Amino acid sequence: MQIERRDFLSTLTLAGAATLFSGNPLIAATSPKKDKLGIALVGLGYYSTDLLAPALQLTEKCYLAGIVTGTPSKAEAWKAKYNIPDKNIYNYQNFDQIAKNPDIDIVYVVLPPSMHREYVVRAAKAGKHVFCEKPMAPSVADCEAMIAACKSNKVKLAIGYRCQHDPNIQAYMKVAKEQKFGKVKMVNSAAGYFDARTDHWKQKKALGGGCMGDMGVYALQGARLATGEEPISVIAQASTTRPDIYKEVEETMMFMLDFPSGARAACQTSFGINMNYLQVNYEKGWLKLEPQSGYNGNKGSMSDGTIINYPIKSQQAKQMDEDCLAIMNNTDLIAPGEEGLRDIRVVEAIYKSVATGKSVKIS
Amino acid sequence: MQIERRDFLSTLTLAGAATLFSGNPLIAATSPKKDKLGIALVGLGYYSTDLLAPALQLTEKCYLAGIVTGTPSKAEAWKAKYNIPDKNIYNYQNFDQIAKNPDIDIVYVVLPPSMHREYVVRAAKAGKHVFCEKPMAPSVADCEAMIAACKSNKVKLAIGYRCQHDPNIQAYMKVAKEQKFGKVKMVNSAAGYFDARTDHWKQKKALGGGCMGDMGVYALQGARLATGEEPISVIAQASTTRPDIYKEVEETMMFMLDFPSGARAACQTSFGINMNYLQVNYEKGWLKLEPQSGYNGNKGSMSDGTIINYPIKSQQAKQMDEDCLAIMNNTDLIAPGEEGLRDIRVVEAIYKSVATGKSVKIS
Repeated sequence: MQIERRDFLSTLTLAGAATLFSGNPLIAATSPKKDKLGIALVGLGYYSTDLLAPALQLTEKCYLAGIVTGTPSKAEAWKAKYNIPDKNIYNYQNFDQIAKNPDIDIVYVVLPPSMHREYVVRAAKAGKHVFCEKPMAPSVADCEAMIAACKSNKVKLAIGYRCQHDPNIQAYMKVAKEQKFGKVKMVNSAAGYFDARTDHWKQKKALGGGCMGDMGVYALQGARLATGEEPISVIAQASTTRPDIYKEVEETMMFMLDFPSGARAACQTSFGINMNYLQVNYEKGWLKLEPQSGYNGNKGSMSDGTIINYPIKSQQAKQMDEDCLAIMNNTDLIAPGEEGLRDIRVVEAIYKSVATGKSVKIS
Repeated sequence: MQIERRDFLSTLTLAGAATLFSGNPLIAATSPKKDKLGIALVGLGYYSTDLLAPALQLTEKCYLAGIVTGTPSKAEAWKAKYNIPDKNIYNYQNFDQIAKNPDIDIVYVVLPPSMHREYVVRAAKAGKHVFCEKPMAPSVADCEAMIAACKSNKVKLAIGYRCQHDPNIQAYMKVAKEQKFGKVKMVNSAAGYFDARTDHWKQKKALGGGCMGDMGVYALQGARLATGEEPISVIAQASTTRPDIYKEVEETMMFMLDFPSGARAACQTSFGINMNYLQVNYEKGWLKLEPQSGYNGNKGSMSDGTIINYPIKSQQAKQMDEDCLAIMNNTDLIAPGEEGLRDIRVVEAIYKSVATGKSVKIS
């Protein structure tokens, strides 16, 4: 029944389909100036399944047009659930053929971090705009290659920093920008959760695991966005309380950042500790957020009595819609590849600090 | 008039005085088993003036019996205000004669930290019990000498850790002891304030200045008391945003502690930043306190809904009364010299870490 419907659709003329199925995204995707961009999710793990796909039912500027997966059973389940035509379902071998598919405007790479570079570059070469999950990649070199590939193929590259689309996070970014309470003096930024899994990519170095990339970028973003500055040096310590599980990567990372203005930050991240908060102490006040990087419910307060509590329906839907608008209108992305690179530059310095036991300058 | 009254008092027989002036502490102090112990404050700076002397008007087990000051005008002002007899007023030259003064049971050393050792040792040799302000002393060697002097002279030595007498602080110490939320995983502990002074002992190395000793011990105590453990290593960074003022000592110190259980702590202290909070993340919950080391108003909450908010009339009065009771009953002090030493051991390691730029083991 499903298959028949898709076959039927594919034989329709565009005009006829548009008439018959007005508002159907499958048709909109093929129009010259689309109302909604078609997104193909690459990698159908937890985040795609439980966050992005549901969010794509809420988006106004994009829709779930396709999937890329190496697991045939997942392909079957998704195509049934989301009515995805076979022609928009790819595996990792035939992925590059996506270049010829007009339904797909954007490839959203949701793979383990070690695979981001390859799939971002392949997507860019296929002429597709790219969304890439955080952490952008395991290395600065990877990030630079990804940015270069998107640039040379004239496609946009957005990093999946959902929080930067969250008005609760934007509230403290604004405080930094306007210097509402004067200079930032001290930031404390923590983001971690207890991960009970024992055999996940997050625990494997080769796949880009470790808490620093996965949760640590939230702790880092807390400090970077609260100061509105880029750190100039970092000293870090990695630790593990479950050495049987965290053999290759750190369970916990603590790091201290030094900013050009004299602001400083203490950041903590972990796969062993439930914690998620931001505290900023300014010259003339303070700001708190807890949680600071939740999928929802981020909220807080400021020393002048301002309450930060802007509920949003879906961070991810807002993120994808805003990124799609930037693509449609050819305007600046909120979190382009360069923003992902800024974090990875610090992450690389953090690992260097762990290796040397000393403070590391960030160039 | 004042002097006449004191002269008159000193000529009275004890029995007669007790009858005439029942409840007058000056008389109680000379009775064989005193109801109230006589305290002499050494050093009449801000803390003695604004905190300890007023607190000594509220204490039930002790009273302000004497003063030791190098400033004659201060001596005059205090004797007028607090009705202190001339015979209980000392300067730094004749201080050792305090040994012969039965009015003075306890010498409370409230001098800059570099002078603690000398005056604690001299007080102990004079046969007086000693209260000593925090930080106990600039070095572990000093602390050990102070403890040894008090031990050999059979007097007690209490460190002025007012917070350990505060039920709001005791609330989180109890959580650690009872492991109410399981193991401690991460502590964030900040204690600092903006000090506008430019020529104070707190800015002079020779006097034991620097934020680490003065405010840093509160940040450190937050971590030590919240875990109920002693740190085994530390990595620290000192910084200054006002190099013209903070030439000799740090304005800000950040340090990260490693505890035997695997608990970790990020601590920050500063003379340039208003901040005072504690956040503890346990295996199964959290606890927050803000402020965490105020003279009053320390309050917070726990993840199970428990509110921490026990108002007390005066921390310092409670501290001195409880320490006096321990002296009267020859029981354990809440914060003896050994507790002060524990902090200074960490402080010494922190400065060593700053000097080497590396993590330092704490023996």
